[in-house]
Amino acid sequence: MIKTAVMGYGTIGSGVTEILAENRDVIAAQAGQEIELKYVLDLREFPDSPIADKVIHEFKLIEEDPEIQIVVETMGGLNPAYPFVKACLMAGKHVVTSNKALVAAHGTELLAIARKKKVNFFFEASVGGGIPIIRPLYHCLMGERIEEITGILNGTTNYILTKMDKEGDTFENALREAQNLGYAERNPEADVEGYDTCRKIAILTAMAAGKEVDYQDIYTEGITKITDVDFKYAEKMGISIKLFGTSRIRDGKVSAYVAPVMINSSHPLYGVRDVFNGIMVRGNMLGVSMFYGSGAGKLPTASAVIADIIEAAQNLKKNVPMGWGDEKQTIEPMENMRFRYFVRLAGSFRNKEQDIRRIFGHTEVIELYGMDEFAVLTPEMEEGAFRQAVAAYDALAEAHSDFGIKQTIRAMM
Amino acid sequence: MIKTAVMGYGTIGSGVTEILAENRDVIAAQAGQEIELKYVLDLREFPDSPIADKVIHEFKLIEEDPEIQIVVETMGGLNPAYPFVKACLMAGKHVVTSNKALVAAHGTELLAIARKKKVNFFFEASVGGGIPIIRPLYHCLMGERIEEITGILNGTTNYILTKMDKEGDTFENALREAQNLGYAERNPEADVEGYDTCRKIAILTAMAAGKEVDYQDIYTEGITKITDVDFKYAEKMGISIKLFGTSRIRDGKVSAYVAPVMINSSHPLYGVRDVFNGIMVRGNMLGVSMFYGSGAGKLPTASAVIADIIEAAQNLKKNVPMGWGDEKQTIEPMENMRFRYFVRLAGSFRNKEQDIRRIFGHTEVIELYGMDEFAVLTPEMEEGAFRQAVAAYDALAEAHSDFGIKQTIRAMM
Repeated sequence: MIKTAVMGYGTIGSGVTEILAENRDVIAAQAGQEIELKYVLDLREFPDSPIADKVIHEFKLIEEDPEIQIVVETMGGLNPAYPFVKACLMAGKHVVTSNKALVAAHGTELLAIARKKKVNFFFEASVGGGIPIIRPLYHCLMGERIEEITGILNGTTNYILTKMDKEGDTFENALREAQNLGYAERNPEADVEGYDTCRKIAILTAMAAGKEVDYQDIYTEGITKITDVDFKYAEKMGISIKLFGTSRIRDGKVSAYVAPVMINSSHPLYGVRDVFNGIMVRGNMLGVSMFYGSGAGKLPTASAVIADIIEAAQNLKKNVPMGWGDEKQTIEPMENMRFRYFVRLAGSFRNKEQDIRRIFGHTEVIELYGMDEFAVLTPEMEEGAFRQAVAAYDALAEAHSDFGIKQTIRAMM
Repeated sequence: MIKTAVMGYGTIGSGVTEILAENRDVIAAQAGQEIELKYVLDLREFPDSPIADKVIHEFKLIEEDPEIQIVVETMGGLNPAYPFVKACLMAGKHVVTSNKALVAAHGTELLAIARKKKVNFFFEASVGGGIPIIRPLYHCLMGERIEEITGILNGTTNYILTKMDKEGDTFENALREAQNLGYAERNPEADVEGYDTCRKIAILTAMAAGKEVDYQDIYTEGITKITDVDFKYAEKMGISIKLFGTSRIRDGKVSAYVAPVMINSSHPLYGVRDVFNGIMVRGNMLGVSMFYGSGAGKLPTASAVIADIIEAAQNLKKNVPMGWGDEKQTIEPMENMRFRYFVRLAGSFRNKEQDIRRIFGHTEVIELYGMDEFAVLTPEMEEGAFRQAVAAYDALAEAHSDFGIKQTIRAMM
């Protein structure tokens, strides 16, 4: 029998204790022995819950109890999650976490301690909720050179964009609806500004590159500027807008970004709707594969934690190599990435054709009936070149009253 | 350094040798040591290939060479694949195979020998080509009670159905096109009759149930009876027709079938087009997740073989538990499964409404302009009850000239 402690009895922590009870037999069969919950660490008491008699308030009890071999961290945030997890690993205990902030900020150090102490630091639940993605990267696609990972990694923003797409909602209305349904926080900044997606793609990039990735090096743009008018064009073009976290590896160079992107129906992530997540992986031999499922939610996320607990139980005396080393990965500047760009411009196309051609190249033009504006779709170009083009067009706008850029969105099609 | 032998230098076997060379460094890093190809067993010579000097024609050389620790079987078929694989396992060598016929027919026995000999018998490439699905079942979803696995598991039939759907092609034309493109064999029976899908869903069912599954117990219906007229109705209904291999586990009872099924756009497999495969897994805690990618093809399939080689290399002295035991699994009779049914009927709906209501229950009616027929969609019912209803309607047809059943297709929506 293996004894475990859960730190943080919130949504995911309580899901973990629930599955440990509910799927006890399956888990024991896979782990090779029973997994028993000994402690639940939380500041609160839970007198009416099934774990009432296991609640403790002192971290030291876990750290100093030699019976505890696997610790589950589902507190979230960095403090006290970081010192607690570090102390557990130093004490020779396996740690399993669902905490993307922790992994993105301190993954490299914690993995190094785990290697040194011959234990494991697992974090499947930190990205993609219940979707297996971390483990496939180190257990299933091991013979591949990963060339790209692109994910719809945040259910809240995907719900908002799906609602704007399907129902013509404004961003503000769709956000309010997401908040009413409990999909978005009262303060939605971490989701809608792309910060959550940024941490997740940083983790996936570190797994793919095998090196430390500083999430602050990743260009991050959220969805707050996407409007219902953009989706009117999208509908006419038969495409959709999704918030992507992407990393690309070519010739040892790594680029990564978070941004809303226009994609058409041939993209594997086109059909990922509502709160679902999807993660596309491109390998040099495999080509494209895609993993889809519940990117959040109590039981799906807790299920990923349970898989980590089982793998830790199967490897009590052994550090499972995950391929994420100590070296620091440089991220290429965003200016070097290539996209097409969707650009909404004020006025009518007629008197601007020559200027647009000169500045943006051979664009496609999209016009909506009855609007005092139009849009163009540029050829593929480097972000740096596009920014220069935007500046050149802005300069024209100063001289001509009906010039002006209303929106720019990256496009991959 | 670990030495390996590849048996069968066909499409997949040559893909394996290619990736072993091309991704040598990645593979060595993951496996913990270099993997060196020592022999390629084939009846033919390949004088101009990079493996020319490794070709052998005598199986005994592999079986009796103590240096060979991992053997790759990519011959296909049962003879001599089965005796060769068995002999390798008996000789204490790990075996990796892409051969679904072998795994479906002899998986239980070969896994038992591997356990006894403390080696591994891996077969990721036997289902879903390059899509990781076997390994997720024993490495990622270990804490789940698997309740359903449904897959589009055959690229050839999915290509044919996609072509019929998108272009209004007849089955015969779509098949010919698939043959011209090399997606279908000259003798396409194994694909279009569902036999290939049957073996694959048998393997997945055995993994999910943890028991031996006889693929001959699985009700199997191919796509040869699906017509362009069916897709006219499908278009009007906004749905699609896919060849599903499905298994369901509830209260320890296992049901499984292979059949074309109508699904709507809310089904996770709706967007799986052309030669791609997709596999949906439903767990009791996780809910639905889906794995998507190239279900066939030289390099994607070989990539799955390479992942197996690496896992064998990481576990040279240890049998990795895969949860597929010796016990035999009973498969519930098809009569007990529940579906809705799409039924195309001759004549016009008007004079038949009462009979249809009485026999099929409260159906939806779908009429196409200018056709001397119509269709109904029944409520959900057991297959056995539906068969009785069909017999009752057939009895009416004997008395009335414009009655008659033209088509029946299961529907899940």
